[in-house]
Amino acid sequence: MRSSNQDTFFSELDQSAKMLEEYLLTNLYLDRFKPEDMRKAVTLYVRSGGKRLRPAILLWSCGALGGDVETALPAAAAVEIFHTWTLVHDDIIDRDDKRRGGHTVHEYFRRHASERLGAISSDEQNHYGISVAILAGDVQHGWGVSLMTELSSRKGLDPAVTLHLINRLDDEVLNMLVEGEVLDIQFSQLPLSQLKLKTIEDMLWKKTGVLYRFCAAAGSLIGLGRVEPDHPTVTALEEFSSLCGVAFQLQDDLLGITGDPITIGKPVGSDIREGKRTTVVYYAYQEADRWEKERIEEILGRSNANEAELNEVISILKRRGGIEKTQERARYHIENALPLLDELPPSRYLELLNAWADFMIAREW
Amino acid sequence: MRSSNQDTFFSELDQSAKMLEEYLLTNLYLDRFKPEDMRKAVTLYVRSGGKRLRPAILLWSCGALGGDVETALPAAAAVEIFHTWTLVHDDIIDRDDKRRGGHTVHEYFRRHASERLGAISSDEQNHYGISVAILAGDVQHGWGVSLMTELSSRKGLDPAVTLHLINRLDDEVLNMLVEGEVLDIQFSQLPLSQLKLKTIEDMLWKKTGVLYRFCAAAGSLIGLGRVEPDHPTVTALEEFSSLCGVAFQLQDDLLGITGDPITIGKPVGSDIREGKRTTVVYYAYQEADRWEKERIEEILGRSNANEAELNEVISILKRRGGIEKTQERARYHIENALPLLDELPPSRYLELLNAWADFMIAREW
Repeated sequence: MRSSNQDTFFSELDQSAKMLEEYLLTNLYLDRFKPEDMRKAVTLYVRSGGKRLRPAILLWSCGALGGDVETALPAAAAVEIFHTWTLVHDDIIDRDDKRRGGHTVHEYFRRHASERLGAISSDEQNHYGISVAILAGDVQHGWGVSLMTELSSRKGLDPAVTLHLINRLDDEVLNMLVEGEVLDIQFSQLPLSQLKLKTIEDMLWKKTGVLYRFCAAAGSLIGLGRVEPDHPTVTALEEFSSLCGVAFQLQDDLLGITGDPITIGKPVGSDIREGKRTTVVYYAYQEADRWEKERIEEILGRSNANEAELNEVISILKRRGGIEKTQERARYHIENALPLLDELPPSRYLELLNAWADFMIAREW
Repeated sequence: MRSSNQDTFFSELDQSAKMLEEYLLTNLYLDRFKPEDMRKAVTLYVRSGGKRLRPAILLWSCGALGGDVETALPAAAAVEIFHTWTLVHDDIIDRDDKRRGGHTVHEYFRRHASERLGAISSDEQNHYGISVAILAGDVQHGWGVSLMTELSSRKGLDPAVTLHLINRLDDEVLNMLVEGEVLDIQFSQLPLSQLKLKTIEDMLWKKTGVLYRFCAAAGSLIGLGRVEPDHPTVTALEEFSSLCGVAFQLQDDLLGITGDPITIGKPVGSDIREGKRTTVVYYAYQEADRWEKERIEEILGRSNANEAELNEVISILKRRGGIEKTQERARYHIENALPLLDELPPSRYLELLNAWADFMIAREW
């Protein structure tokens, strides 16, 4: 049963998602994206929901520092769109064909290529899908930057704060994020016996934690209204969000194995086929016997692994404690994150940030 | 024989390219790009030269309005890097394997995939090359934005001007550029009999003219030091640069047929294999007889067309006036562009802008 705190959290999360969608899905933006395929491609994931946890931490960090949440809205929209372009490009790289219950952008346009280009070979269809998805991600990247500039042009924020945030997003955040993604690709070829927890979490932090940290920084600096990145409340919120971001990613990796494919919107086992080096695999591999180790090594990363093979690996991962230990690890990060909120004065935003942290690992989608 | 004006132009172009490379190739930036493959990928085209015509028009527009060229340097660097990421992504989309005499980014990393990932299939090598190139372009996009912010943080420009320029680059310019690229892809399937000069030039303007226009706008607004986009000198320089940009692209399409492959850095005929709807094809097709039309239709866009077939199309394009008429058209745009400079007071920058316009269509590389 939900507590009333949780009820408030879910209704506030819902409301911030609605504000966001209202801000984003207007013709002011949509008319920019041409031709028709591009408009469809750019908005595909924006319309298909998502948890909107990044905008929420950004808006609530702003509120927790006494700022007007309305002022931070363009930045909340910007990080959501920034996150979206990384998904569109990552989906090409990870060769995923499902996202949020629908097709990924490249898969969608592969399937619809012939409507646009006539009778073309399957190779050409593939290439059209990838081409549209590359460009759609590029357009979203630009959209994100353009949204950031609206902090000043539409909300009157000091341009120096806006420039500071744009620079951090497109330098620090972007570079770490891409580094994390490249490491993820390269790790998928690394012998399992060489995996270390620290290496995996460092990669996860770059892939996920860095953008969460930015959301807290952006929200709290907008709340402050000036460029003061070393302000103790700002740095506490950054560290809080950063730890929660790593826990979020651990939970994601868990759900990729134990989750309900309908709820999470993609098939269970795709991480196994891609050979992802998750902590679930790491922990289970440590405890596995020789035969199990061999089976994991054989099947992990085999793109055409069948159901029976996937289930075999999944049952080893479960049996050998990969799930439980990953859960414990995620909880450990949240427990380290929560005391950082002591820095903040009491407010309804503080309550929401507490509930937000709990949700990062309680969620089943 | 070169006139002394031309000598000055070439030495000044050279000097602006040097300033640019000095600004860009420092560890301040290079240390951001990790891991090693990413650093290599991000800097591959930056190190391989290029004509640097965009930074030149930006810097000289600033000078022509009485501004300090040094102040505009971060923007000149930004547009060069912005242009570079579009090349990296376009090269994937166009399946080009050569650029500036070396391999394209995705081709380079396809060839070097095994060094990083061990013995993998040719499909996997291909995918690694494309993945690295997608991410490298993304990083460059962010680098470009981050460089723009340095107009204020390193050069003291009013943050309002910087934000105005960032927004125009990542909204207006980027969206038109991508629209042009998608149209280019979609046109490659369009029956030649339906091609119109206006449609082709509209696509070229979006693919090339828009960024040239932005360079002039950025340089002149930095020169002015305030947000006044309707200032008559600013709009005159924009229109000038825009027309020159279309002429530049017409010249590019010419050189793709008549140019020396060593000088232009890519094989002659790749545009034909890709089925590009250039004005060279358009004009020649208008004048071709039935048999020639059929041959163009058969061979254009055939990715495995052999040397003899390419030469056959090239000789039809030449024989039927495609080259000459495209040359005339490019000259027509430059002739329309030059009088726009009458708006400017006399200065050495005005001389350089004149020579720059001439070079756009005189160049053989």
